[in-house]
Amino acid sequence: MPRDIVAIAADHAGFPLKSVLAEDLRGMGFDVLDLGTDGPDSVDYPDYGEALAKAIAAGRAKFGVAICGTGIGISIAANRERKVRAALCHDVSTARLSREHNDANVLVLGARTLGIQTARDCLKTFLTTAFAGGRHVRRVAKLSPDDGGQ
Amino acid sequence: MPRDIVAIAADHAGFPLKSVLAEDLRGMGFDVLDLGTDGPDSVDYPDYGEALAKAIAAGRAKFGVAICGTGIGISIAANRERKVRAALCHDVSTARLSREHNDANVLVLGARTLGIQTARDCLKTFLTTAFAGGRHVRRVAKLSPDDGGQ
Repeated sequence: MPRDIVAIAADHAGFPLKSVLAEDLRGMGFDVLDLGTDGPDSVDYPDYGEALAKAIAAGRAKFGVAICGTGIGISIAANRERKVRAALCHDVSTARLSREHNDANVLVLGARTLGIQTARDCLKTFLTTAFAGGRHVRRVAKLSPDDGGQ
Repeated sequence: MPRDIVAIAADHAGFPLKSVLAEDLRGMGFDVLDLGTDGPDSVDYPDYGEALAKAIAAGRAKFGVAICGTGIGISIAANRERKVRAALCHDVSTARLSREHNDANVLVLGARTLGIQTARDCLKTFLTTAFAGGRHVRRVAKLSPDDGGQ
C-alpha cells in the first residue's frame, strides 16, 4: 500500500519549524510533499497557504501542515479553498478536537507562538486522531459542500 | 458621527460568552449587530460563521466577533468569504498581532478553550490595535484581492 502523503508549507517565520516537522512526518511513515519556502528570506504567507490549499483540493496530499508566525495569516489563506478545513491549533487539545469535530485536513501552527515540543505534539495528535462523525458530519458538509467533507 | 457597528455570532457553545462580549462592546461605545444564536439549543456553527461573513462582506459591520467551542469550525466558515480575515486568537498577543499584521476584521474565540477574562481582554485588544501597514499591506491584499484588504 502506498504511503499517505502529507503536504507542508510555511513562510520564512515557519521555515525552521517546517524542517523539524517534515522529519517527524517521515519518521511517522508519511511521504512529505514540501511546498516551501526553502530558506529564511522574507516571503508572503498567502502564497504558501494557497499552494497548500491547491495541493489538498487536487488530491495531491491527504493532509496538510501550514506554518507562519502566528498561524493566523496562513490559516485565512488556506481556508479560502472550500475543500480545505484548516485548523489553527495551539495545544494538543485543540489539535485533537479539530480532527474529532471538524474533520480538519490541514493543521496550522504558529512558529512564533508555540514551543517546538508543543508543535511536534500537536502534529502527532492531529495525525493519530479520527473524525468522530455523528452530529459533526452535517456541520462538516456545510464547510465543504462540494465533497461532503471528504 | 454614527457609532461603529460590530457584528457578533456564536453557536450554542459560544452563546453565553457572546452575551458577555456584546455587553462589553456596548460599554466600549459600539453598536452591536447580534446575529445569534439566541439560546442554548444545539445549532450548526457554519450557519453562524456564514451569516457573520455575509454581514462583513455587505458592509453591515466594520468588525465581527465569532465564537464556537474551539473557534476552529466557525473560523473556517467565516474565512470562506474573501473579504473576511477571521483570526482565531487564544491570547492578547495573538489578538494584537492579528490586527497589526493581518488587518483581521473578525476576531474568533473558543468558548470552551479560553477563560472569560482572557476572551474579554482579547476583544479589547483587538478593537484598540491598528493595522501596522508597511510590508503587511501586500500580504493582506493577497488575502482579500477584491477590495485591497479594506
